[in-house]
Amino acid sequence: MRVEIVAIGTELLLGLLVDTNSGYIAQQLADNGIDCHFQTRVGDNISRIKEALATALDRSDAVICCGGLGPTSDDVTREAIANLMGAELVFQQDIWESIEARLSVAGRSIASINKSQAMVPKGAVPILQLTGTAPGLICRVGEKAIYATPGVPAEMKEMMESTIMADLRRRREGDYVIISRTLRTWGLPESRIAELISGRIDTLDKLALGDDLQIASGQAEAMEPGNTLPGERERAAKSGSARLDVPTIAFLASSTEGVKIRIGIKSNDRGKALAAIEREEKAIREILGESIFSSDDETMEEVVAKELVKHNLTLSVVESLTGGLVAARIVSIPGASQFFKGGLVAYATEIKKKFLGLEGPVVSEEAAVKMAEGARREFKSDIAISTTGVAGPDKQEDIEPGTVYVGIATAQKSVGYKLSLRGNRDRIRQSATMAALDILRKHVMSL
Amino acid sequence: MRVEIVAIGTELLLGLLVDTNSGYIAQQLADNGIDCHFQTRVGDNISRIKEALATALDRSDAVICCGGLGPTSDDVTREAIANLMGAELVFQQDIWESIEARLSVAGRSIASINKSQAMVPKGAVPILQLTGTAPGLICRVGEKAIYATPGVPAEMKEMMESTIMADLRRRREGDYVIISRTLRTWGLPESRIAELISGRIDTLDKLALGDDLQIASGQAEAMEPGNTLPGERERAAKSGSARLDVPTIAFLASSTEGVKIRIGIKSNDRGKALAAIEREEKAIREILGESIFSSDDETMEEVVAKELVKHNLTLSVVESLTGGLVAARIVSIPGASQFFKGGLVAYATEIKKKFLGLEGPVVSEEAAVKMAEGARREFKSDIAISTTGVAGPDKQEDIEPGTVYVGIATAQKSVGYKLSLRGNRDRIRQSATMAALDILRKHVMSL
Repeated sequence: MRVEIVAIGTELLLGLLVDTNSGYIAQQLADNGIDCHFQTRVGDNISRIKEALATALDRSDAVICCGGLGPTSDDVTREAIANLMGAELVFQQDIWESIEARLSVAGRSIASINKSQAMVPKGAVPILQLTGTAPGLICRVGEKAIYATPGVPAEMKEMMESTIMADLRRRREGDYVIISRTLRTWGLPESRIAELISGRIDTLDKLALGDDLQIASGQAEAMEPGNTLPGERERAAKSGSARLDVPTIAFLASSTEGVKIRIGIKSNDRGKALAAIEREEKAIREILGESIFSSDDETMEEVVAKELVKHNLTLSVVESLTGGLVAARIVSIPGASQFFKGGLVAYATEIKKKFLGLEGPVVSEEAAVKMAEGARREFKSDIAISTTGVAGPDKQEDIEPGTVYVGIATAQKSVGYKLSLRGNRDRIRQSATMAALDILRKHVMSL
Repeated sequence: MRVEIVAIGTELLLGLLVDTNSGYIAQQLADNGIDCHFQTRVGDNISRIKEALATALDRSDAVICCGGLGPTSDDVTREAIANLMGAELVFQQDIWESIEARLSVAGRSIASINKSQAMVPKGAVPILQLTGTAPGLICRVGEKAIYATPGVPAEMKEMMESTIMADLRRRREGDYVIISRTLRTWGLPESRIAELISGRIDTLDKLALGDDLQIASGQAEAMEPGNTLPGERERAAKSGSARLDVPTIAFLASSTEGVKIRIGIKSNDRGKALAAIEREEKAIREILGESIFSSDDETMEEVVAKELVKHNLTLSVVESLTGGLVAARIVSIPGASQFFKGGLVAYATEIKKKFLGLEGPVVSEEAAVKMAEGARREFKSDIAISTTGVAGPDKQEDIEPGTVYVGIATAQKSVGYKLSLRGNRDRIRQSATMAALDILRKHVMSL
């Protein structure tokens, strides 16, 4: 099954608004094994919207479009679809009443301008929503369908989850599931990870290629059996065209948050698929060990928080080059007060001396350890972690930017780590933050 | 002149990679008064790339495509373009030599796979680059042109700046300039700003509409004279179709960074255009006063840093709900050590007491003031700023999430401010951070 995405809005064309909707919808389609070959962005203009929708519908089984369903005169998606369907727009009293009810509950004035939102192309089915006022639309065009949602991300997501994906799954041929799991790693570059698990990928590739691999027509063109990173087979798999029951592995480097490894599978049997994913995850975890810090959407700070609570430990932080970034990520966790005592941003050398008793060079392993010990003492926490280093752009005490030390102090011991990080000032500070949290995670887990 | 954008890469279609390139290119086009009516994303597939390029070229004067110029077998943009031009790919020895030279300087091994990057469609002009290896391409197709750049944002930007925009400006009819200035505000909602400067907008609209407004054909369909926010005229203007010499005003709300106001103008005369922009900026500044904290790309923390250095003042920070975010933004400024002493993340109540001598409720105006005074004393800084409040999701001491206090202490006085912020935990913390920096900015500027 093929679905295209059309994002509507002049702001998108002007680069004034980043189109995050298309990426979200694309991911939903991929996760459900639905191919998406083209995505288009078009402005708030009836004839051009119609042209974009017609072209997309011509090439695909369905189109999901988002944007242009609001009440103002530049919201013309409804007209464009009606036009394409050759249907007239009909005022639907029941929709109008539900919009009126919602607006009056919200204490907002009901302008007659909102009436346009109760207009529906004849033959289309409205998708009512909980959050906003503009209903979405399901429009049958022959054997095909156009789904229209508002451009507001929360409203679009609500409709995708409540209605559109279910409708698409129903329309999709075959009765298979697509399941995926993402393993998140820190500390190894993508090339090293690829090297370490190339054996697994080769095994899976042989399994998949040994049979009549159902790759999507076009995907085959650029295909080459040995080319597995980020080879066509993973892509084919993610777009739902891979061989049933053989997991696929793909990488995604996300700069300062580490490398993600995605295991995906398509199967007729949910139990079988889950078991295969578990098996593959286990194999990769055996190879990469504690470099994997979480799976799916769990962040580094969430893992750290969970481990601290589990071990019933309190934390304090002292930061130089990261300047509050480590503390800010800890505080982003609701309920951080359970384990987080506080932090010190010891930026000026005199502050390091006054609060932590630090003498001598401030960018060294020894300094990092002393800072952590000082914080542990001053904040009376079980564990303290410290960062010091040179973020750049200039050298400091003749030390190269990217040279970073992390210290950790517990009741049992104090340890310092030296890191060599790359990138500009911002990237070095972000990477130092992740590295410090990762060191903390490993320490707590080893207790 | 019309230009379309085609972003190439299967990762984009799968939602694994966010397409930031199209937004950047779109902004460049808009800033140069070039219309962009459609943007397309397509995967690494020769026939579909060819189809997308052909469709785009058919509707426009030129196409900028990015992605798929790398050395691996799934990079097929070159082939697709050659195919579309009806030209063969020719190996260019001089390009190969420059790629070899670059790779050997970087100490990277030269794989024969890189040779594909020296292939150029016959008749196309390569755009050599400084950063990476893949050259871009300028391909004439009849009277029209396809520009191809790599998908790596830094490499794409380099080519846009060095070559493509200059070539487009040369091809563009007429010899006008587009100049814009963005004013950044904090503290007023978009609706209030719109209300305050609606008079200016009306005046400009009358000036523009009184004459033969050269709006782009399609833009006119949805146009309505009174509809000026974010009316069609601003859009027409940004896409280069507005009346010469009449400035336009547009708004852009960017959630936790405040509302931006963009003044744009198109003119035959750079001096005249600059003068008109200055005049408009002055008028808006008179209306909005100190709500405008900077212009163009200058961030709030950059303004704060500049003001502190100018007044030769040192700063310290004490944070509860923002948990290091204020300090982290200050430390993001290179040279922050010149004025920044340090910060305390006083998250646990006992820490507020121990370091700052704070007794009683910790979420109050009085607490915020005492925290700032304590920080000023402990860090021996000229100014200290504090944040305390409830980030949510739960109430604290029976206080609603979003209730935030900011305190500021200087040698002359201490003041507290109460804020009511909306949103989730993250948004409340981000807004509190901006608000604290803004209060600091206004205090320093008033000294």
